[in-house]
Amino acid sequence: MATIDLTSDVVTLTAALVDIASESLDEQEIADAVESALSGLAHLEVVRDGHTIVARTSLGRRERVVIAGHLDTVPVNANLPSRLEGDVLFGLGACDMKGGVAAALLLAASVPDPVRDVTYVFYEAEEIAARYNGLGRLARERPELLAGDLAILMEPSGAGVEAGCQGTMRVDIRTTGERAHSARSWMGSNAIHALAPVLDGLTSYVPREVEIDGLVYREGLNAVGISGGVAGNVVPDEAVVTVNFRFAPDRSEADAHQHLQETFEGFGLTVTDSAPGALPGLTRPAAADFVAAVGAVPGPKFGWTDVAQFAQLGIPAVNYGPGDPVYAHKADEQVPVEHLHRVLTTLQDWLTT
Amino acid sequence: MATIDLTSDVVTLTAALVDIASESLDEQEIADAVESALSGLAHLEVVRDGHTIVARTSLGRRERVVIAGHLDTVPVNANLPSRLEGDVLFGLGACDMKGGVAAALLLAASVPDPVRDVTYVFYEAEEIAARYNGLGRLARERPELLAGDLAILMEPSGAGVEAGCQGTMRVDIRTTGERAHSARSWMGSNAIHALAPVLDGLTSYVPREVEIDGLVYREGLNAVGISGGVAGNVVPDEAVVTVNFRFAPDRSEADAHQHLQETFEGFGLTVTDSAPGALPGLTRPAAADFVAAVGAVPGPKFGWTDVAQFAQLGIPAVNYGPGDPVYAHKADEQVPVEHLHRVLTTLQDWLTT
Repeated sequence: MATIDLTSDVVTLTAALVDIASESLDEQEIADAVESALSGLAHLEVVRDGHTIVARTSLGRRERVVIAGHLDTVPVNANLPSRLEGDVLFGLGACDMKGGVAAALLLAASVPDPVRDVTYVFYEAEEIAARYNGLGRLARERPELLAGDLAILMEPSGAGVEAGCQGTMRVDIRTTGERAHSARSWMGSNAIHALAPVLDGLTSYVPREVEIDGLVYREGLNAVGISGGVAGNVVPDEAVVTVNFRFAPDRSEADAHQHLQETFEGFGLTVTDSAPGALPGLTRPAAADFVAAVGAVPGPKFGWTDVAQFAQLGIPAVNYGPGDPVYAHKADEQVPVEHLHRVLTTLQDWLTT
Repeated sequence: MATIDLTSDVVTLTAALVDIASESLDEQEIADAVESALSGLAHLEVVRDGHTIVARTSLGRRERVVIAGHLDTVPVNANLPSRLEGDVLFGLGACDMKGGVAAALLLAASVPDPVRDVTYVFYEAEEIAARYNGLGRLARERPELLAGDLAILMEPSGAGVEAGCQGTMRVDIRTTGERAHSARSWMGSNAIHALAPVLDGLTSYVPREVEIDGLVYREGLNAVGISGGVAGNVVPDEAVVTVNFRFAPDRSEADAHQHLQETFEGFGLTVTDSAPGALPGLTRPAAADFVAAVGAVPGPKFGWTDVAQFAQLGIPAVNYGPGDPVYAHKADEQVPVEHLHRVLTTLQDWLTT
């Protein structure tokens, strides 16, 4: 069984976590190591649910912060074991997100008496279909374990604060026509031609930019797939374009759906996938205080992340973690040593002053 | 081995031909039967090339007419054996085109001394890819066997005359863009959106109608396929629409290509398939005489047929055969008995007066 040492420095601990392979659905070994290490800390109450570990202080503070990170990675891509080159640590998960997990674990060990109560959550299966997600399971089945005034999701954010996240909705827009031999096309009705106004709507669409809590969210409406056609000599009777709408978190999913129906009025829309956004919530005291302590100008999060799970529970949430997200899921995944130290130090300061 | 009797009536012979299964590339049995029957006729010189049979009179007439029909059918579709119901003969190939073949065979047997020399061609593999087509092989390798002043292709034409045929050209119109995560779509360039002007061009296109030899050919420009997309969260970097242009026979393939390049100016076009049209040639004496003899008002042929193979050889060609072409390739394939008799009688009259 792998063990981890919570007295090591953050770079060494990140490397040790990277070297415990933990592809999604194979998190037993790393979860065992995390549970074992945290169970040795007298100031934390440790609860395990599947391969998801929750560790909490119970000091009766006025505020509680949830600090969370997932333990799983995407599949290995010739990027194990870890290796340190100069000021950069390379390896699967170094960026997404074992650097953040290492910082959170050392925070748990090094701050036994925080000024805010803390709930640490180390969870499984973030990189695969949502139904496996350990944080989602807790949110559905044991939401009391996630209660708090602010959540910090330690996903890579370049060691800056990214607040909220945009929602995402996918719809199929389907046109129908009537088949005919293409040599007698006037006998039929071309479903691909009928998509022309949909593509025109997409090209002329002006995405909204909206400022929320000082952050500018930039929406986007894009065709991500198109298909149609029966045979090379047949006027096709069906065509479909799949559109992905990334919407600012001031819209609900229902609002987003209505907006799409208005944008593509007269066409039949089928929602195939949808996830709500998350408001940044930076005006709430815990979040504002955190942003001030970090001293960084927060930015908006465009991609969908698990902060939305906290938002659904009514908890403002931010992404704050080491590593540039462009390296996530890449063969040359990496995290700067400086990010690891800075994120840990900043959180230690914030929890002790 | 199947045999056919050229002393039987045209309905009986059509039924006998239907009952010799002859899906494309499986024409040996029917070709053997046809060759054997024709070889018994002293006034014909019979040549076999693969499963294609050519039988010619050599009377030194001023004109020569080529009368042609294919021996193969599409695959069986629960429509064998033949059955006669009232005045309609049902069965695979009854319409496309064993009725026409039966009429041609009886013509060959019953008119030993025609006023025009006749070349009968019964050929293989018309219903599949062009490279297998027996008529095409003769045109390439033994064009002297197809020499003549007029060709009558006995494809189903409702027992009327359809003259010439339209050409067909397929092009792929491909757009390129730049991939990006759909949550940050402004970092990329959407290749599907870039197809919008192509679809607009298709919907606003006004097909030309052109009169040639008194026939009105109606062109058509249609998308027959469209595809694009990488993943549900990716701005796609490539999309393609396949367009089929059916063009009147006054355009050459080069003209058709240029027209498409002008219509879709600024886009990259790749020709994937092309076949020339065939001018009706109704002003040429042999054709005009035939039309007058049949006494029908000729119509334009929209679909591409093997008449274009004759046109390439400089021979005016018409479709003239029993059966409504809408029943071709259908499970309820059928031919009216009246068509069979009328087509045979008309051709007998034309070849003897």
